[in-house]
Amino acid sequence: MPRIFKQADDELLLRKRHSLSHVLAQVVLEFWPEAQLGIGPPTKDGFYYDFLLPVSLTDRDLKAIETRMREIVKQGYRFSSRVISIEEGKQLFKNQKFKLELIELISSGKLDENASVEQGAVDKLLIYQHSSFIDLCRGPHVESLSEIDENSFCLTKVAGAYWRGDETREMLQRIYGYAFHTQEDLANYVQKIEDAKKYDHKVLGQSLKFFSVCENVGPGLILWLPKGALVRYLIEEKIRQRLFGHGYRFIHTPHIGKSILWETSGHLDNYKENMFPEMIVENDSYFLKPMNCPFHIEIFRTLVQSYRDLPLRLAEFGSVYRYERSGTLHGLTRVRGLTQDDGHIFCSVEQIKSEICSVLNLIIDLLKEFNFNNPQFYLSTRPKDFSVGSDEIWQTSEQSLIDALDDLNLNYYVEEGGGAFYGPKIDVKVSDCFDREWQISTVQLDFNLPVRFGISYTDSDGKKKHPIMIHRALLGSLERFFGLLLENYKGELPFWLSPEQIRLVTVSDKFNQFALELQGKLCPKFRVSIDASAERLSAKIRDAELERVPAIITIGKKEIEERVFPVRLRQTSELKFIKEDELISYFSSFLHN
Amino acid sequence: MPRIFKQADDELLLRKRHSLSHVLAQVVLEFWPEAQLGIGPPTKDGFYYDFLLPVSLTDRDLKAIETRMREIVKQGYRFSSRVISIEEGKQLFKNQKFKLELIELISSGKLDENASVEQGAVDKLLIYQHSSFIDLCRGPHVESLSEIDENSFCLTKVAGAYWRGDETREMLQRIYGYAFHTQEDLANYVQKIEDAKKYDHKVLGQSLKFFSVCENVGPGLILWLPKGALVRYLIEEKIRQRLFGHGYRFIHTPHIGKSILWETSGHLDNYKENMFPEMIVENDSYFLKPMNCPFHIEIFRTLVQSYRDLPLRLAEFGSVYRYERSGTLHGLTRVRGLTQDDGHIFCSVEQIKSEICSVLNLIIDLLKEFNFNNPQFYLSTRPKDFSVGSDEIWQTSEQSLIDALDDLNLNYYVEEGGGAFYGPKIDVKVSDCFDREWQISTVQLDFNLPVRFGISYTDSDGKKKHPIMIHRALLGSLERFFGLLLENYKGELPFWLSPEQIRLVTVSDKFNQFALELQGKLCPKFRVSIDASAERLSAKIRDAELERVPAIITIGKKEIEERVFPVRLRQTSELKFIKEDELISYFSSFLHN
Repeated sequence: MPRIFKQADDELLLRKRHSLSHVLAQVVLEFWPEAQLGIGPPTKDGFYYDFLLPVSLTDRDLKAIETRMREIVKQGYRFSSRVISIEEGKQLFKNQKFKLELIELISSGKLDENASVEQGAVDKLLIYQHSSFIDLCRGPHVESLSEIDENSFCLTKVAGAYWRGDETREMLQRIYGYAFHTQEDLANYVQKIEDAKKYDHKVLGQSLKFFSVCENVGPGLILWLPKGALVRYLIEEKIRQRLFGHGYRFIHTPHIGKSILWETSGHLDNYKENMFPEMIVENDSYFLKPMNCPFHIEIFRTLVQSYRDLPLRLAEFGSVYRYERSGTLHGLTRVRGLTQDDGHIFCSVEQIKSEICSVLNLIIDLLKEFNFNNPQFYLSTRPKDFSVGSDEIWQTSEQSLIDALDDLNLNYYVEEGGGAFYGPKIDVKVSDCFDREWQISTVQLDFNLPVRFGISYTDSDGKKKHPIMIHRALLGSLERFFGLLLENYKGELPFWLSPEQIRLVTVSDKFNQFALELQGKLCPKFRVSIDASAERLSAKIRDAELERVPAIITIGKKEIEERVFPVRLRQTSELKFIKEDELISYFSSFLHN
Repeated sequence: MPRIFKQADDELLLRKRHSLSHVLAQVVLEFWPEAQLGIGPPTKDGFYYDFLLPVSLTDRDLKAIETRMREIVKQGYRFSSRVISIEEGKQLFKNQKFKLELIELISSGKLDENASVEQGAVDKLLIYQHSSFIDLCRGPHVESLSEIDENSFCLTKVAGAYWRGDETREMLQRIYGYAFHTQEDLANYVQKIEDAKKYDHKVLGQSLKFFSVCENVGPGLILWLPKGALVRYLIEEKIRQRLFGHGYRFIHTPHIGKSILWETSGHLDNYKENMFPEMIVENDSYFLKPMNCPFHIEIFRTLVQSYRDLPLRLAEFGSVYRYERSGTLHGLTRVRGLTQDDGHIFCSVEQIKSEICSVLNLIIDLLKEFNFNNPQFYLSTRPKDFSVGSDEIWQTSEQSLIDALDDLNLNYYVEEGGGAFYGPKIDVKVSDCFDREWQISTVQLDFNLPVRFGISYTDSDGKKKHPIMIHRALLGSLERFFGLLLENYKGELPFWLSPEQIRLVTVSDKFNQFALELQGKLCPKFRVSIDASAERLSAKIRDAELERVPAIITIGKKEIEERVFPVRLRQTSELKFIKEDELISYFSSFLHN
């Protein structure tokens, strides 16, 4: 019986982090009484608070703030909350213009979730107080600061952040901190962050020549260099093999389409600011695609008439383009052009469960190939306020997702009401070797697009019905997944994913001919290159190691005479002596682990 | 010693066709004396002439014109030419406004080659006369119409054509005709055209569900349906295998890039009307790529420092977007979005010959895979009027191309002065089963872009040098090549290219389980499906035939007991009985022909 977690996070830790953000604000107000306070929520590894300040904060300031925070924490102040009227709130925060703005938004019911204050509240406000500091806040907090270890947190950096994420508004200074239960947890986390920085995929990707980004092409647009493109191809082929086995059919669709597609899908209403600008051609308006869905729906129209044609499973390595502000772009993980291992399943309500089972199995198998053996599953259910589709369809499909998770005996978290308005979903996350969590796969049911696009099939009872549409991406985007792989493998790709698997290094020119022959024997099965340069042997081996070639074979007089070759294995630092006629079976063993 | 043809076409046939276009104009003037004459050149299968007429021509008109043309041809009038002054010309054609416009253009030296009149002429005009008809014309013509068999030609259709191809000018009526040496040649050609129409890739592509184009996505934007996408994948894999063997390195580049790329390449100066409109993002101007070259050049910068890094052979299945007027779009052969099997070789001058040899070998081998066993080679040399690059580099590189063709013992045509201003090239054409010629591959040397983009390498003498850039596409665009394949195979793709290779057809439900087991045995190697529907056997076989499945295996009681299976081969209409344990080796034989 699978374990169901109601809440994904460590509730107590969130309270501690949130409370520390209040302490941070308290100290900043002590130091700069004219400071204007923004918001200060907990984060995945700590907390932050935004401030409009008369000074630019320095590292020395951070240190001083942190020291004062520790003193306050040691005082063990209690937190208390109180409901007040709008008028009282306006009086209380009369010198805090951002808080007044929030009160205005709250009272008119317009506040979005970014501000971390309860939505929909209209005539009452919640405030929290500890010591002399009062904040407009929905909580929750610790009962008392004595619950917090004064050495379990630290401030990390200051960064600019627009008020309410709006680039037309004031630029505030956001102070970040880490916070954990214990000093040891904090130290471990800091150590992992330091380790992770060493293996930043941007650095590895450039030094190993996997990819590049260049000014002339544009920010966030990735040039996949030969080695990176080869790894990408290997990943694609791995996915392709698996998908064939699961009854998927690959398609190719264009990178642009008429605006009618995006009007119908709702993207032009809700997503336009993330789309590249319109292109007008012969009086028609075109857009670069931010999603593949509308194209797959058009293909559904061509291929499906009756229930006998279902389920239809379409897959595409679809390159999409999304506008992100250049300041937010980051290596391969936040880009403007990305290729999704995208797919859509069109099926009947009755087929949902078996399709979800199949997709989950696919995801689990595929992630294992990349050494992610412990994926976490998150089920998001019907949102409370607004959704499309009947009660019946929501209930049936949520139950189908639960049944699928149960059938596969998977533990999962439930995010009640966390689904999109058009259907429930399952998210899949993995943790990397630095304990960072990455959202990878999504399996999203959609009751909306089939209706908006008016696609249907004739059911066995002769009635026209809308199919259920399942959007699913296995690895998300190839760019982001490759970035994750590079960091998780610390640049040491496993043998099967290495663009160059074996390098033959000759002791001198005389053995180059033999190296060519050996390459010919190994080549159909492995990716083998020869270093026949005039460099010294040690320099050649060093080059191969720097380029992260997993296996290096030295070739000299003795080796050729004895037909036994020294094989250096980078990842285990072993030196093995392998007979010539056993080389193929030896290396083959690396392909099946 | 290879044969070199100075002129690619049958000179006499061109003269006949050109002469028939004059006869056509003569008849139209007889019938409608107020007719305004455009131009009338020979074509690949006949001739045409453009007219501004007071009536819309009907099929009946065409028949009457054709009949009158035969009478005139039978008269055997002689052609004579004469040089006249501009003034005389203006007098002679005073009632023909288009001819007067041509004379104006000729006399000011502005005429482009579309008008089929000699360029650069400024004070003299050439006219040709037969019977009473005189035309402004550079010739050549037959000596006398008695050389033409009166039954060797026919008129085929009327279509609209703008004067001088300019859509802001008058729309003329263009009358087309076929013409050959003999009535038999004509009949054969007409038969082939009829045959070819039956196998139009647009019809086949739709009925076999290989691809579709839909209004909502936009004209000229191809949706590759599952079966077509699978064939495309097989073609790509075939190319990929070959290219790995030839030392190419695959890359992936974005579909958009900043305008600086297209300013530097010269596309914004010379090709802008064929590019999709600009997109402005954060004050930068972006364009959808019409070519991959600038991206490959940026990758050269990342990968090449010294002569030791050359040659660099980059390959990409690059999707590019080009604006074509919607009226000119046609199935897969003229589209707005296409994927090139693109590649660029960067090398030194000394490496040109061996690189060209390698590319030509690659092309010949690859075309053989698709049953094009007799490609034709066309060498285009330095244009007379304007070119970039030194005399030395032109001479060396033209000689390298010739040496490569000679080394491979290839016949080729020379188009003197037919090269681009930036380098000589070799075009490769094939003929399909309807004797239509298709331009497939291009190998284009480029002395220009490396200079414009300022890319260089350090040579062995320590000096910085610009590399030679070789643009080469093997099959051109995957869309167009697939269209050609569909027509050339008449919809019957060979076994290795068939999306579904084998269909198992069960006599009744009882044998479905066995079919599944057999599918399991054949599947790793072949693409096998099962028809387990409740249809009658004959209907199942008919369905498989309609879907052009090359091999159909029937499974019933007797077959299972005897372990011998009837295999129906579509393409040869054979029925073979194959033992169960020989099925794999039997079908394997189809993969190697």
